[in-house]
Amino acid sequence: MSNEVLWAILIFGAGILAVIFALSMARYVLSRDTGTPEMKAVADTIYEGAIAYLNRQYTTIASIAVITAIIIGAIIALVGSETMDLPGPQAAIMTAIAFLAGALASGVSGYIAMLVAVKSNVRTAAAARRSLGDALLVSLRGGAAGAFFIIALSIMGVAAIFYAYNGFNQPERAPFLIVGFGFGASFVALFAQLGGGIYTKAADVGADLVGKVEAGIPEDDPRNPAVIADLVGDNVGDCAGRGADLFESTAAENIGAMILGVSIFLATGRDNPGFIFLSLVLGAMGLIASMIGVLSVRPSANADPMGALNRGFAVTAVLSIIGLFIATLWVLDGNWWLFGCGLVGIITSILFLLMTQYYTSEKYRPVRTIAEASKTGPATNIISGIAIGFENTALPAIVISLAIGTAYFFGTRTGFSDNSFVNGVYGTAVATMGMLMTVAYVLAMDIFGPITDNAGGVVEMSNQPEEVRERTDALDAVGNTTKALTKGYAIGSAALAAFLLFSAYLSDARLEAVNLARVPVFIGGFLGGMLVFLFSSLAIRAVGRAAGDMIEEVRRQFRSEPGIMQGTVRPNYAKAVDISTRAALREMVLPGILAVGMPVVVGLILRAEAVAALLMVGTMTGILVALVLNNGGGAWDNAKKLIESGQLLDEEGKPIGKGTATHAAAVVGDTVGDPFKDTAGPSLHVLIKLLSTVTLVLAPLFIR
Amino acid sequence: MSNEVLWAILIFGAGILAVIFALSMARYVLSRDTGTPEMKAVADTIYEGAIAYLNRQYTTIASIAVITAIIIGAIIALVGSETMDLPGPQAAIMTAIAFLAGALASGVSGYIAMLVAVKSNVRTAAAARRSLGDALLVSLRGGAAGAFFIIALSIMGVAAIFYAYNGFNQPERAPFLIVGFGFGASFVALFAQLGGGIYTKAADVGADLVGKVEAGIPEDDPRNPAVIADLVGDNVGDCAGRGADLFESTAAENIGAMILGVSIFLATGRDNPGFIFLSLVLGAMGLIASMIGVLSVRPSANADPMGALNRGFAVTAVLSIIGLFIATLWVLDGNWWLFGCGLVGIITSILFLLMTQYYTSEKYRPVRTIAEASKTGPATNIISGIAIGFENTALPAIVISLAIGTAYFFGTRTGFSDNSFVNGVYGTAVATMGMLMTVAYVLAMDIFGPITDNAGGVVEMSNQPEEVRERTDALDAVGNTTKALTKGYAIGSAALAAFLLFSAYLSDARLEAVNLARVPVFIGGFLGGMLVFLFSSLAIRAVGRAAGDMIEEVRRQFRSEPGIMQGTVRPNYAKAVDISTRAALREMVLPGILAVGMPVVVGLILRAEAVAALLMVGTMTGILVALVLNNGGGAWDNAKKLIESGQLLDEEGKPIGKGTATHAAAVVGDTVGDPFKDTAGPSLHVLIKLLSTVTLVLAPLFIR
Repeated sequence: MSNEVLWAILIFGAGILAVIFALSMARYVLSRDTGTPEMKAVADTIYEGAIAYLNRQYTTIASIAVITAIIIGAIIALVGSETMDLPGPQAAIMTAIAFLAGALASGVSGYIAMLVAVKSNVRTAAAARRSLGDALLVSLRGGAAGAFFIIALSIMGVAAIFYAYNGFNQPERAPFLIVGFGFGASFVALFAQLGGGIYTKAADVGADLVGKVEAGIPEDDPRNPAVIADLVGDNVGDCAGRGADLFESTAAENIGAMILGVSIFLATGRDNPGFIFLSLVLGAMGLIASMIGVLSVRPSANADPMGALNRGFAVTAVLSIIGLFIATLWVLDGNWWLFGCGLVGIITSILFLLMTQYYTSEKYRPVRTIAEASKTGPATNIISGIAIGFENTALPAIVISLAIGTAYFFGTRTGFSDNSFVNGVYGTAVATMGMLMTVAYVLAMDIFGPITDNAGGVVEMSNQPEEVRERTDALDAVGNTTKALTKGYAIGSAALAAFLLFSAYLSDARLEAVNLARVPVFIGGFLGGMLVFLFSSLAIRAVGRAAGDMIEEVRRQFRSEPGIMQGTVRPNYAKAVDISTRAALREMVLPGILAVGMPVVVGLILRAEAVAALLMVGTMTGILVALVLNNGGGAWDNAKKLIESGQLLDEEGKPIGKGTATHAAAVVGDTVGDPFKDTAGPSLHVLIKLLSTVTLVLAPLFIR
Repeated sequence: MSNEVLWAILIFGAGILAVIFALSMARYVLSRDTGTPEMKAVADTIYEGAIAYLNRQYTTIASIAVITAIIIGAIIALVGSETMDLPGPQAAIMTAIAFLAGALASGVSGYIAMLVAVKSNVRTAAAARRSLGDALLVSLRGGAAGAFFIIALSIMGVAAIFYAYNGFNQPERAPFLIVGFGFGASFVALFAQLGGGIYTKAADVGADLVGKVEAGIPEDDPRNPAVIADLVGDNVGDCAGRGADLFESTAAENIGAMILGVSIFLATGRDNPGFIFLSLVLGAMGLIASMIGVLSVRPSANADPMGALNRGFAVTAVLSIIGLFIATLWVLDGNWWLFGCGLVGIITSILFLLMTQYYTSEKYRPVRTIAEASKTGPATNIISGIAIGFENTALPAIVISLAIGTAYFFGTRTGFSDNSFVNGVYGTAVATMGMLMTVAYVLAMDIFGPITDNAGGVVEMSNQPEEVRERTDALDAVGNTTKALTKGYAIGSAALAAFLLFSAYLSDARLEAVNLARVPVFIGGFLGGMLVFLFSSLAIRAVGRAAGDMIEEVRRQFRSEPGIMQGTVRPNYAKAVDISTRAALREMVLPGILAVGMPVVVGLILRAEAVAALLMVGTMTGILVALVLNNGGGAWDNAKKLIESGQLLDEEGKPIGKGTATHAAAVVGDTVGDPFKDTAGPSLHVLIKLLSTVTLVLAPLFIR
């Protein structure tokens, strides 16, 4: 068999294997018991709320997506596209179909991941009645089911549409036809992340402000009408939202790398199609490495869960390096410069996890500084949190710069084509591939987060013994860490993937340079930076408004039915879920339109080069602001947890715990961080990739 | 007489006239009575603290500046400079002297402005015993004395060194020799603004947290040991700091415009030297317009002070337009496209004042939203303040984009030289000139701020009757507005001036393009964006640490001397002043080194084009973050004031005032905003210009 056939077998083989793996994980989880009838009742309510939200969200997104597909098709049909070298109407239909395929695949994978997650929570809670290790196994496997399904669908989706569009015989144009797939995926990801992020924080802030602060009842108390909405929210934000985010990162990376691979392939006399397939091959190998990584997590009953997850990641990373080595020999004729590029990517992924841990874990200076500052009140807590958030842009920016710079340098040393720039950028593509080899494992750790969070809620609401709650609390703390780590990983990989897409855009728009010294280009860049701030502002305000709706509803229920507070009457959870749903869907529209509309308007007025600057400066600013929002928020969260755990001491060496003014100050910071880290920050990851894909697809409009 | 001679007469004539005007304003203020002996005693203490701080600050800055001058000289002597076309050692000495001249002029002007301000405060307080109008007159004239001295020195300084370096006969190289003047000025401005900003907020936050919160005594209470340091701080931050900032904006604008003017002059066959002199001529005309504007402020006893100041600004703006008209006919042979550019600048200055007013005045939605959000506690106050801060980047970014775009377009229409780019950029230079014609008036309004603030402190500490305090309170409220407006104006003009300096750098570094698609250039840009966040983080943390020192000192005094709280023992004000001074000088070093060092390091490693990107993306990000910090902080401040004034109503329509939980929440936002709007934000204005000037001066190092 030729290499090409073997690669295809590997790509689809690993993809199908990952789907089977996901199904077996799901089956394992579903085979577990659902605990007491009370536990099952709580879980069923969460399940219903989640499904109700998802159905409405995806219905809304689907109708916006179909309209957008028609608009894109119409534009391409009218304007045509040089790079596709096809009649306008045919290019239009193919792009529109790719867009819808990307949107559908992203939507389906988010939906299924959610389904498994909301089935896993109660089973994790039930397992926690036996042991911590058992609960870890159930929750991680529930997360893995969703994660592998998502990543497998992303890799196979890109590969399938590449083959369907005859990419093998006409590699010059196929990648440009399939960018629609990336745009569709990021389109859905934007709305899923925005809607999910608004939903989860509206419910969380609303539940906390009325429940904990006004009514004085604990978190996850069944008397709080917003409690189910809060638990549903954890799933729609961290599970469906981040799933769509990383689906899109993987798709964007594969598409960007294929476009660059085609350039090298053509420049080297159509000698080795491996340049085009490398990213899919590495993706397939990463899937296999991640599967083994997940299976290697076999905690004993009393082991440290974070340690077990870290060991699993180490296994995945080592296997990825081996996979990279094999691929270098097999696909790239043993070019060790490119092996170096891939290694840079894997190291970058590890560094991002370490940096995120440093800035958000209670063990290190940043979180301890914020906790210390809480002693002098909420103002100093906020000031030091923002200072930490601003500071934490430095290391990741240096790491991204070093990664891109080193990979580029290694790439130029390959000397594949005469164009040293293309060689160098292909090096950064390989680094991105390396970084994303571990994506399925990281995503499994991420979805593990909302499952354990929900499990804690189920335990609390079904009045389980203290020791069970302690076990789910321990898992929940680990879940908070893995969620923060995934955000760090997501922003790092978004940065690298966006860099690839720039290069693809430059080639698509036939631009030689993006000269910031030209006035329209400078203005485009400046507006790109501004877009990030305005978009974040809209996302944060959306949470404020939606939380306001929720607060009024909870107050109304408490007022109209005194039996709720006495515990004799069940609150109307469904109504609160409905309020969050409506508010989230309403509020996600304006920032979504801004994100898609602004590059189009700037492109129409200031043309292709200015859009490139908008894209690039918008991406730089977006990465920096996302780091501020994600890790600032994460640090506030853990500063509060540090105080709650009694690790902060007063002048006399006694622990300062809950109920103190210091704790109250830390709660303020935590609440401020909520919309930062769970709504605006993650939405910026998606914004970055959306800007790249929308401009790639509409490039023909800006160059005519 | 030739036009050239007439222009020189106008420039130095207007400059000397402005100095005489400043002296007569100072004499007017000094001739006024100093009130009761108690008032004089308070004022003397402020005076001593201010002078003690300034002496130490400028001693520190002077020694750093001399070392820097030697380093710059050594670099240029070794590396040489093509653009200067002089032997290395000669270019080195001339640049080093220009640097020291700029540093000295900036230092002297800041010092003198402070001197007048700390003499004006007690006289304003004394005048307030008679009438509001009289107090307004004294404080505005005290501000005008400093402002006109600063701006006159800036214009004459640039002109003098231009003539001294034989610019008239060798216009090709003189502007490149005088960029050292701009670098010297921004170097001093950075440390003055950083040091002043840290000083003022350390004292303010320290005084508030221990005095108001812990000890429960009112603001400006004489029992608070930090109260004098707080009053001194208002002067060193808003007066010396912003004075150095606008000194530098004016100098940078003139130097940048002269460099571009030389390009046009040479390209048009050395026909009209007016291209070189236009900015100085317009500066001189602006000085005259501003003098008349200040003199036109003649409030009656009970008039609205803000209205009086606004009318004065309107007079200045109208006279500036007339001056622009005359200059167009006289200097530019009636080129109406350039008149249009200047008009764009004047309109931009007005728009910036309006936008800042919208975002920081209690009359409009933004501040009202924050006040409303305070009802649900400090967390929602902070969230909505940050959302407003992020949002408020949008309009200014659009206005700056439109201003640069329109002025550039008008410039290209002049067709002066064959190089359409140079023509266009010269158009933006003329817009910057237009914007800065009103600078002396705006700066007078700004220095008015700390004078009225101090006057209120003097009144409070000397136990004057309630009606006097009411008058100074009214003036203080106006002063808060003018300070916020000046910051808006400063950021707008910094943006335009930086744009000129980019173009000068490109010409100096012989760069054709700043191509963001090149990897080192992209990395340079990304690190430029990061620099803004890291620098802001250091500035904010510096305030936190310095405030911590102050808090401990105030607590120590209260503990060791119980008589202080009983009012029987005078607290040790000098010790508190000393603490602030030491802390500010210690903390300003690290961010200062970062600001100067990072462009140099990037330039040495990644070369000239990457530095250009660092400069440009750093400037874009700097403008955006400065807007967030300045206006976010201003909005929080006024949301608190809105609540204090009883304008916020509860559900039953009753006013929510001081002492409520809502007010406490608003105080949190106000405290958070303090280091944002008075330390980090204003320091970013200076950072932007420093980046431009340091790279301009060291360009030879990056191109070899």
